[in-house]
Amino acid sequence: MCEANVYMEKNGIEELVLESVDILEPQENDTFRMVTIFGEQKIIRGRLKGMNLVDHRIVFTAENE
Amino acid sequence: MCEANVYMEKNGIEELVLESVDILEPQENDTFRMVTIFGEQKIIRGRLKGMNLVDHRIVFTAENE
Repeated sequence: MCEANVYMEKNGIEELVLESVDILEPQENDTFRMVTIFGEQKIIRGRLKGMNLVDHRIVFTAENE
Repeated sequence: MCEANVYMEKNGIEELVLESVDILEPQENDTFRMVTIFGEQKIIRGRLKGMNLVDHRIVFTAENE
């Protein structure tokens, strides 16, 4: 399966937000809806920093520059 | 490998932009840098609409609402 783990970077430190994310969709107001392969949903607020799919990593940052 | 294919949606029609994308990073001015698993780079301008990693799909839209 090709799901990814979503991390939030705050002050240079990454924290795992949600594992096994399949669907990621931008919503309003800098939020993103995530759905895991198990059907769990979660909303994250932040800015997309980057993703590395081969490493199963999607990183957001809390900074709004 | 867990790369994805990037599509651009224009007027409701999806066009394949780049296959086997590993890295995706937002840049300035609504552009995103993509790097494939083969090291090929490409810049796309648009708005992220959503992604479905299990289906290896990342969709952008040309609309700037």
